[in-house]
Amino acid sequence: MSHPFFKNHGPLKLSKILNSLNININDLKKDSEIDDIKDLLSSTENDITFFHSKKYKDVAKKTKASFCITTNILKNELPQNCLALVVDNVLVSTAKITSLFYPDSRNDNFDETVSSINHTNYKDKVSFGKNVLIGKNVSIGKNCKIGHNTIIEKNVIIGDNCSIGSNNIIRNTLMKNNIRVLDNCVIGKHGFGFFPIKNNNIRYPHIGVVLIEDNCEIGCGATIDRGSMSNTIIGKNTYLDNQIHIAHNVKIGENSIIAGQVGIAGSSIIGNNVKIGGQAGISGHLSIGNNVEIGGGSGVIRNIPDNTKVMGYPAKNIREFLRDNK
Amino acid sequence: MSHPFFKNHGPLKLSKILNSLNININDLKKDSEIDDIKDLLSSTENDITFFHSKKYKDVAKKTKASFCITTNILKNELPQNCLALVVDNVLVSTAKITSLFYPDSRNDNFDETVSSINHTNYKDKVSFGKNVLIGKNVSIGKNCKIGHNTIIEKNVIIGDNCSIGSNNIIRNTLMKNNIRVLDNCVIGKHGFGFFPIKNNNIRYPHIGVVLIEDNCEIGCGATIDRGSMSNTIIGKNTYLDNQIHIAHNVKIGENSIIAGQVGIAGSSIIGNNVKIGGQAGISGHLSIGNNVEIGGGSGVIRNIPDNTKVMGYPAKNIREFLRDNK
Amino acid sequence: MSHPFFKNHGPLKLSKILNSLNININDLKKDSEIDDIKDLLSSTENDITFFHSKKYKDVAKKTKASFCITTNILKNELPQNCLALVVDNVLVSTAKITSLFYPDSRNDNFDETVSSINHTNYKDKVSFGKNVLIGKNVSIGKNCKIGHNTIIEKNVIIGDNCSIGSNNIIRNTLMKNNIRVLDNCVIGKHGFGFFPIKNNNIRYPHIGVVLIEDNCEIGCGATIDRGSMSNTIIGKNTYLDNQIHIAHNVKIGENSIIAGQVGIAGSSIIGNNVKIGGQAGISGHLSIGNNVEIGGGSGVIRNIPDNTKVMGYPAKNIREFLRDNK
Repeated sequence: MSHPFFKNHGPLKLSKILNSLNININDLKKDSEIDDIKDLLSSTENDITFFHSKKYKDVAKKTKASFCITTNILKNELPQNCLALVVDNVLVSTAKITSLFYPDSRNDNFDETVSSINHTNYKDKVSFGKNVLIGKNVSIGKNCKIGHNTIIEKNVIIGDNCSIGSNNIIRNTLMKNNIRVLDNCVIGKHGFGFFPIKNNNIRYPHIGVVLIEDNCEIGCGATIDRGSMSNTIIGKNTYLDNQIHIAHNVKIGENSIIAGQVGIAGSSIIGNNVKIGGQAGISGHLSIGNNVEIGGGSGVIRNIPDNTKVMGYPAKNIREFLRDNK
Repeated sequence: MSHPFFKNHGPLKLSKILNSLNININDLKKDSEIDDIKDLLSSTENDITFFHSKKYKDVAKKTKASFCITTNILKNELPQNCLALVVDNVLVSTAKITSLFYPDSRNDNFDETVSSINHTNYKDKVSFGKNVLIGKNVSIGKNCKIGHNTIIEKNVIIGDNCSIGSNNIIRNTLMKNNIRVLDNCVIGKHGFGFFPIKNNNIRYPHIGVVLIEDNCEIGCGATIDRGSMSNTIIGKNTYLDNQIHIAHNVKIGENSIIAGQVGIAGSSIIGNNVKIGGQAGISGHLSIGNNVEIGGGSGVIRNIPDNTKVMGYPAKNIREFLRDNK
Repeated sequence: MSHPFFKNHGPLKLSKILNSLNININDLKKDSEIDDIKDLLSSTENDITFFHSKKYKDVAKKTKASFCITTNILKNELPQNCLALVVDNVLVSTAKITSLFYPDSRNDNFDETVSSINHTNYKDKVSFGKNVLIGKNVSIGKNCKIGHNTIIEKNVIIGDNCSIGSNNIIRNTLMKNNIRVLDNCVIGKHGFGFFPIKNNNIRYPHIGVVLIEDNCEIGCGATIDRGSMSNTIIGKNTYLDNQIHIAHNVKIGENSIIAGQVGIAGSSIIGNNVKIGGQAGISGHLSIGNNVEIGGGSGVIRNIPDNTKVMGYPAKNIREFLRDNK
């Protein structure tokens, strides 16, 4: 994946990584320099990876990474070239290491880099309202409008002909062309992803972005969280009504229509030409096909194949739903 | 209906209308001037109307309009006085023509006409917070309060003794007296009404307003969209809790109580003395009677007669719901 | 309970109280001074109390209050030391009297006491964004951040190491240490509690606060209402996702995780280590035990014992739900 906005602070010494995991091993490799943290498949020789579940056994066997955070049980699946770093909780340790490489990806405090648009280059290029703030590393295309009190925080690229309304907060977001964002939205904050730890949860890093394709409309009061390890994506010409919540890593296809107060939980993938009625909810990690229609108020807890109409909680075929509820 | 805020740009030449529909007819009437676009019933001789469904056949036979956007099949139902303009999609064409007459009704970019309340006549008449902005064509009554960062955009009339909180955005809205709007609301933006067209949806015009009657309370985070061809109405002494979404053309009666996170889809009509529990959803184009009680979490997908208590998804008689779910 | 922010305007003369209730009795006690209004149990000799339901009969018999708002039927349960003040509607009358003692507790107009943080003592102690406003009676601890356009209204105490995002409005709130509030939240406004009266509802007083314990996170767009007669509480290390609504008097335990768009109705009590899935709703006045898991989309309308997993609408045991919905 691309994570254009989060600078990799690597290479890091292995010893630094071991310290942060409280691992104390005697190994000549302690001075090794590690470039990045990646998944089992995409790691190369200079990377560290992680392996937390048996179901990734086959990929693990072939990883090119030289180091792998894993458990005592799983370590035997790793190839010779890869040194196991045994920990109690692989995901928590992975989060810790990821935040060493990408320290800015968990910190979503307010953006202190902003200044009034009047003091930026956009003063003469953009049509803007009162009290508009622009952060570091922001790019805005031709013929754009930005409404009152809107804060374009750091790491935002906006294409041409976009109309951003008032009272919005946007960061870590790539917006293509002809996009309309109405009012009161928060786009690009980290997701609700963390490791529950008694008295002190640990958020895992969010190095993804929000990517909004051409011609989309985002209604009032939307919250669209950026991805953790991948991106959150809204496909071309997809329209979102008011008060919608899109969690981290969600990907929505093209030409879809999502009515008011819908919520889509983390990492679900929605196809093209999908229609979702008001207040419907979609659980996390699901796959919703193309040309699917989901009735208002539905609760979707299973994958839905292409060309299907569903309704209900849990959502089922709409004919079945209507027959059962005559 | 009244649409006090959207100026009719008519009369328009028929030739201009034909152009925008890509219709090329040879007719001496090309130079006719057309005053307005209206429905079949209320059109007069100088208006254009539209006819898109058989069920309006009887009204169509009697229309006084001289021109009618319709289909090849329906055109034969029109009277002699009315010239059929045959198109593929009547509603899309109607939207196009309406936006010729009312070009401002689809544009909900941020309001560039606003200025600080300190530079308006209201400086000494209204009690107001920091950073309050007032648009063109705004009227505010006696003894009103307007909170910090609130933007009263163009086309708003506020009565006496109203208390508007902070961070609100209001446009195209008529508010009577003794109304309380809490914080973070967006009132009067266009609705989620558009024609889905591949890669480039077309919004239809919204020439209605939001009308809020005496003594209402609107909770934090509400979104209340203005009507498309009619108004969105909140009746006298009706109270809305936080995070409620009211879609375009909805009409709510008097003395109703609507709990948090309720959503009401477009064009539904709610009676007087109605109580709606938290998170309930009401589908579009429904009619909910007087003295109805809808349980929290319900999904209403059918009309509900007066004096009924319902609950469930789909909502049914509450006794039945409780019996079925012991 | 403690209600640190609402000043008691007592003692008040009994005659003033009688006037506001339109009660005309001849009694030498008319000149008595009354200190406060309290419940039957905690009242002392100089207080007035209220008694509106048979189920409080046993407590009523032992009240130490000298005066009690009650009905003609219930008055006979009161002890000799307590003079019954008979009214038609005990709760409405209680609301009226409470607002005599605590006149500020029903008025949630925008806070006129705020000024720019640049003009306060916090200028050099807090890291803050543009356009931050601070009200009267605010205290902020060490190492805190406050984002752009955020309004800390009157009566707010913030501990150390707190990160408040942008566009928030907070009042009548006690926040401990290490708390993160993201953006666009409204915390501490009065709840949706009022007596429905034709054409002119009467809000009852809200003299409680919102109390947020250490290490909590409050997601974007939350609305958390302060309590009416008790406090609204978010326990230690509890995390709230985006667009959540917490009504007045709700108490949530420690280490709980609440996903997006959840709504919890007034006065419900949630235990420790509770997980609530997205869009779930919990009715008012319920008790949810410790270690409970509530599936996304559920509608909870009954109490849930400790260590239970539920799902559905109405929510039932999750195994039952999945079995019934295969």
